[in-house]
Amino acid sequence: MAATTGPEIERLIQLLAKLPGLGPRSARRVALTLVKKREALLTPLANALTEVAEAVKVCSTCGNIDTADPCSICTDPRRDASLIVVVEDVSDLWALERAAAISARYHVLGGTLSALDGIGPDALNIPQLIERAHSAEVTEIILAVNATVEGQTTAHYLMEQLSGLGVTVTRLASGVPVGGELDYLDEGTLSAAMRQRRPF
Amino acid sequence: MAATTGPEIERLIQLLAKLPGLGPRSARRVALTLVKKREALLTPLANALTEVAEAVKVCSTCGNIDTADPCSICTDPRRDASLIVVVEDVSDLWALERAAAISARYHVLGGTLSALDGIGPDALNIPQLIERAHSAEVTEIILAVNATVEGQTTAHYLMEQLSGLGVTVTRLASGVPVGGELDYLDEGTLSAAMRQRRPF
Repeated sequence: MAATTGPEIERLIQLLAKLPGLGPRSARRVALTLVKKREALLTPLANALTEVAEAVKVCSTCGNIDTADPCSICTDPRRDASLIVVVEDVSDLWALERAAAISARYHVLGGTLSALDGIGPDALNIPQLIERAHSAEVTEIILAVNATVEGQTTAHYLMEQLSGLGVTVTRLASGVPVGGELDYLDEGTLSAAMRQRRPF
Repeated sequence: MAATTGPEIERLIQLLAKLPGLGPRSARRVALTLVKKREALLTPLANALTEVAEAVKVCSTCGNIDTADPCSICTDPRRDASLIVVVEDVSDLWALERAAAISARYHVLGGTLSALDGIGPDALNIPQLIERAHSAEVTEIILAVNATVEGQTTAHYLMEQLSGLGVTVTRLASGVPVGGELDYLDEGTLSAAMRQRRPF
């Protein structure tokens, strides 16, 4: 390819291919679209990336990604400061916000505990969470971690650490997803939904 | 989302969602990966895009995209200047170059003729091709357009325009793709492969 196109385009394709969900073929397709739509897409995207690179910050309170520190969620006075929703990743925070699931503060762990990968409590934002849990303002901590083995292991560890601090620790309900068909659900989900059945 | 993350990140997600193959969900995933890998990915990508935006040019001879005009293919002395490969799009040129199919010059049409969409010969790079075909240097023009109805319509139009100019006009062979199984091929491909069978 070196003689086919300029080194700048070649380098752009290589970088695009590193993005999640893009391979070499789709990276070339994206690069070509960008080059063809220089005014409409390429230049605005270059500027947007530069702005984000300069502006983006990790919130020192909750670990959220924003352009302000503390982030706009931590400083939003309309949110219930007595509730902290603990999530693994910023993408989970975004998902809960899109669902408008709750108007609370968040705490982004930045991953899950993993003995195999050597990820202990100090590698995650767990000490900061314990510190926040000591605040008199906080009454409930909602563990909104993924329903995976790693997520649930982390949740159990957090439960232990947070017990005795005078805060209520809760977790997300497990059961049948809205719109889900029973026939397609795994046994674990079905038996959890059955065990935790509610009055109609 | 406006209160969840900064406007810069929101704008980046909107631009990423316009890229081919990316939707709103994958654009968010890409944006988050970029923000997390600021040094390794975000800044280099921003710089690469800016460089491409400044450097990229459309070759005035063949319509290829490069950082030089005439492009590096048109100025490559090792290529056979008597052969011109006509392709619909730069992506087709890249595909032929990846396959190292031929060491020739190219001519990028920029699309196909379409009466429905009002795309006539002047909307494509066809006049420039006729002009190049008049050059004494050129002996063969290979129509490497897609094997679609639009591609073949364009090929027939070009064939008419190029006849009588003293250049040989050829087109790609049609037949069974290498590695293809007969059972999965359409009737058109199979009967073309049978009609154009060769001595073993």
